[in-house]
Order: sequence, then C-alpha cells, then structure tokens
Amino acid sequence: MIYLGIDLGGTTIAAGLTDINGNILETASVPTARKRGQEAIIQDIIKVSRQLIQSFKIDKVGGMGIGVPGPVDVKTGNIKACVNLGWSNVPIVDLLEKELHIPAFVGNDANLAGIAEMEAGALKGAESGIIFTLGTGVGGGIFVHNKIIHGSRPVGTEIGHMIVGENFYDCNCGNNGCLETFCSATAIISYAKRLLEQGGTSPMLMEMTGNRTDNINGVFIFNAAKNGDPLCTKVIDRLAHYLAIGIMNMSTATDPDIVAIGGGLSKAGDFLLNKVRKEYVSLTKYFTGIPPENIKFAELGNDAGIVGAAMLAKQGIMEGNK
Amino acid sequence: MIYLGIDLGGTTIAAGLTDINGNILETASVPTARKRGQEAIIQDIIKVSRQLIQSFKIDKVGGMGIGVPGPVDVKTGNIKACVNLGWSNVPIVDLLEKELHIPAFVGNDANLAGIAEMEAGALKGAESGIIFTLGTGVGGGIFVHNKIIHGSRPVGTEIGHMIVGENFYDCNCGNNGCLETFCSATAIISYAKRLLEQGGTSPMLMEMTGNRTDNINGVFIFNAAKNGDPLCTKVIDRLAHYLAIGIMNMSTATDPDIVAIGGGLSKAGDFLLNKVRKEYVSLTKYFTGIPPENIKFAELGNDAGIVGAAMLAKQGIMEGNK
Repeated sequence: MIYLGIDLGGTTIAAGLTDINGNILETASVPTARKRGQEAIIQDIIKVSRQLIQSFKIDKVGGMGIGVPGPVDVKTGNIKACVNLGWSNVPIVDLLEKELHIPAFVGNDANLAGIAEMEAGALKGAESGIIFTLGTGVGGGIFVHNKIIHGSRPVGTEIGHMIVGENFYDCNCGNNGCLETFCSATAIISYAKRLLEQGGTSPMLMEMTGNRTDNINGVFIFNAAKNGDPLCTKVIDRLAHYLAIGIMNMSTATDPDIVAIGGGLSKAGDFLLNKVRKEYVSLTKYFTGIPPENIKFAELGNDAGIVGAAMLAKQGIMEGNK
Repeated sequence: MIYLGIDLGGTTIAAGLTDINGNILETASVPTARKRGQEAIIQDIIKVSRQLIQSFKIDKVGGMGIGVPGPVDVKTGNIKACVNLGWSNVPIVDLLEKELHIPAFVGNDANLAGIAEMEAGALKGAESGIIFTLGTGVGGGIFVHNKIIHGSRPVGTEIGHMIVGENFYDCNCGNNGCLETFCSATAIISYAKRLLEQGGTSPMLMEMTGNRTDNINGVFIFNAAKNGDPLCTKVIDRLAHYLAIGIMNMSTATDPDIVAIGGGLSKAGDFLLNKVRKEYVSLTKYFTGIPPENIKFAELGNDAGIVGAAMLAKQGIMEGNK
C-alpha cells in the first residue's frame, strides 16, 4: 500500500508518496506563494496530489495526510488556524476527499514530525517518545502507548508553550517563561541582542553581521559559540539549560523511551546535543529518568513533513478511522 | 469478580475489597508502625489481606494491588524506594504472591490515585486526564488513550518535580523551581514564614499559632486567607498561580479531558478551586485548552489508595499481564 503526504509550509507545498514503512518513493513540490490566497493554494495541493497519484493505480493509494503549521481538529478534519498563511477554519479534509476520492487526514506539522520519527526515524521501535522541534518557534509531538497524543480538544501538543522559568520578554501567547522564548531561533537572537544592549561585546558576531545587530541569526550565534565567543557561548548555554528543563519536565510527566530534537537549530550538531545532555544530567540527580544517550537528534530533516503526513494517514486507516 | 487493594502509608496500612467498578465492599486497617521494620510490616500486609480474602471464596478474588509512597518498577513488581519507610528494592509482588497465591501488582500511590479517579471518581468516563495530589509534596498521575502512563523506566509520573519557575529555596531533589516547592503544604508554610521574616505581618495567623511560626500549618493559612488576611491570601494566590502553570504545562503536553486536584490541600474547597480556575483562564488566552470547569476536585479522598490499588489489579488482569 502507498500513502500520500503533503507538507504545507509558508513557502513550499511539498508532497510525496511513501511505502507502508515511511520510505519516500517519489516527491513533487510547488511554491506556496501565500499571497495568492487560500483557494489557489488548495487547488495547487489538489493538482500536485493528482500528479503523484497518477504514477500509481488509485487503489494502491491507501490514504493521504496533510500537515499544516498550526492547530487542527484531527477529528473533524478542520484547520483551526494557520497564522502564517492567514487561514482559519478550513475544512481541508472534506475539500481534499471531495476532489481526490481517497481518505484524508490532517495534523499539526510538529505533531507529524513526531509521527514521522516514530514510524521511520529516531523514535522508531520505541513505545513512547517526544520530539522537540526547534525552529522560529518550538513545537513538538508526544507519543505514549505507541500512539501520538492528539489531545482532547483535540489541538495536539504545544510544548513550546510550557512555562519553564521567567524571561525578560513575554511570549506571543501572552505568557511569560514559555519554552519557546528560551529555545527557538527567535529566542537566541533576542537574548544575544539583549546581552549586547546591556554592554556585552562579541567582536566575532559583529564581524559576521557587518556590525548590524539586525543581521544576527541563529547560524551566526552557533558558529561564534563553536569558535569560543563568550557572549554567544552564554546564549547557547542558556538555550541548552532551558531545553534540558523542558526535556526533564516531560520526562517527569511521561517518562519516554527516547527524546528527539529536530527543527532548524538541530543542525548545530553534537555541539548542541552535548550541552543539552550535560544540562539534563545535572538536573536529574534525583530521578531515574531517560538516560542522556537516549536524547538524540531527529533523523528525517526536511522529509519529516511528508513522511509524517503519509504515516498519519496510514495510522488513521489502520485504526479504522476511515 | 472481587479485587483487593492495599494502601501502604507512613502511618496506616489500609486494605479493602472492591467490586469490578471500584466500589468498596469491605475494609480493614492496621497501624504501619514503621519502626518495627520491613519484615513485620509485610507480615501485617499479608495478615490483613488474608482476613479480607477469607470473607470471600478465593476464586472470586481476581487480583490484588498495593500502592506505595515512592517509585516502583511496575514490570518487575519491585518497590524501588520508600523514603518515608526507609525501604529500598523490595520485591513486594513476589513476596505477596508467594504467600497469598493471587496475582499481585504494585504502583506508586499518586499514580494509583489517578487510576482510582479514572475508574470510579472525578475522571470516570474520560479518555485522558491528570490528577495533581497536593499534600506534603505534590504527586500525580496522567492517563491518555484510557491508560495510566507508567513510563519507560518505569517509574511513573513525578509531576511535582516539573520546573515551573524560580523559587527562593531549592527542592529536595536538588533543583530549583519544582511545582512541589510552590504548591504543597510544605511550600505554603515556607512561603508564609518567609513573608513574615521579611517584615510581613499576619495578626490572624499569629493568633492561630499562639505567636509561634513553628506552629504554622496549611489549615491555618487557608483559614486565615478565607477570612481575608492579606499575607495568607498572597500565599494562596501564589499556590494557585503556580498550580495553574502546572495544569497549563500538562495541558499543552497531553491536552486532557479533565484535571482533578486531590490530596490534603484539596479540602480547602471552592475557595482554592475558584482561584486556580481563574489563574488558569488568565494563562490560556491563546490556547484552546481544557475548559476551566473541567478542572475539578478528586472525589475519592482517603479511599483513593484502596480503590486505585484494586483497580490497578483489575487493569493488569484485563490487559493479560498475569
């Protein structure tokens, strides 16, 4: 059986067919070009889906999934909101099924990254696991009893908004101390700028940015930290500390087999992972928690969206939801 | 079918028989008298179990469970540690099965309170839920997909050690900012004392305690707060604020149907519950989280230990674990 996965992002609509184990067989993509509006984008999703499906006999495509950057209602198949695209309350599953005549499912993209890692990546074979995706924001997915948690509302998991401390700026959600305000690209840029404003210096970062703090980005901060810059090291150490708190908090709650770290910041590699593991160990003197070697990087990278969406469909079909 | 539940506490060994729905049919108890040591206490557990079982035909007793105040390994049936009793690594399930010849299971007492509420109390009928038990410390149980989370190690849930802020004193676990240091009886007593040390005044609390801060307890603080004492109101408001953060953090993670609050502090009643709900609402401007009316008190009170232990056995037998 073949499954179709769509990863609807702010810049690209990526689509792919996978086998039952989440191996990608074929892909296609088109720019989202979000200014065109909802109708045109959905037409493109349908078009790219048709192209891929036509490579196979239709009865071999067991189902399709679509991952979107925002909260969804997995039961009704509605997108609740995609702030980046300016969408709200879109009955995406109905729209896709009407046109494509295959069972469709929708999920939050970070939750789907969890499903992808669980079916075909770093969390494969585990009975329980968590993925933290560190990008512009922080998202994630949690599974226990071999099943992803979609939640009761069901809005899935929003672990970036777990409160883990007190911060110098508030989160977009209105609260103070959200994990996202310590562990995202946005968070480390904000903290580096704050240290500079408070009189801290970083000749290395200033050289990279052409002396313009507006040019500071996550890659520059990581590169400067890797080269020993004290200010950027402080920024990354803080990220590692609070990510370790986030992992420990979830470890006290669901005690998972494995924790995976994905998203753009995970490209920082072992430099980041070693710091996170060390901080985690220092926080778990008392617990028999997850062993630090079970804190790993996610493995699927950019493919996670397609694989997760396809595997969401597989799981939905297997559970008899359609 | 009948199930036997044992609640091993620091002061009392409470035992009871329940029907399949967790209704208590008969109970018995003996003092723990912990200074007697492990051997004598286990003999008493066996003795009180025999007395209860003899009221019924043995083949009607489908299984037994025992809840202990500390981490357990639910798979091997070992108690890892009971700090209050000075026990470590006790193969309690083997010991009980050898003597009583019925399938036995062991669980952490706070996790079992969750099972009890799920089978017969405030969480009944929900697919997912969380119980926070507020006592000397803070414990809890989480269930999703209709099953309690025992965790991977499996040490169950320790949500009292979730880090939710920064506090003026460290937790016994060595970390700073654990939920337990904001929301337990110990936490509110410590905070009231600190406010007094910093020059705060509470004539009401001083009268209740005979002017001795060593006599401050949770009941006095709640009573003074209910009577409008500003210092004690500040103490309870802080508890409510951080408990709301704890609930929100778990809501972002597992998005449960219902949250139940149990343990000694829940006796404070609606005075506490209303504050917690109000704080929760103010923290969830952005989320479609659990509705505040689904934050409730646990219903089983002192019976939760017996009912949870008996229902642990029922669930274990039904899942085919014995």
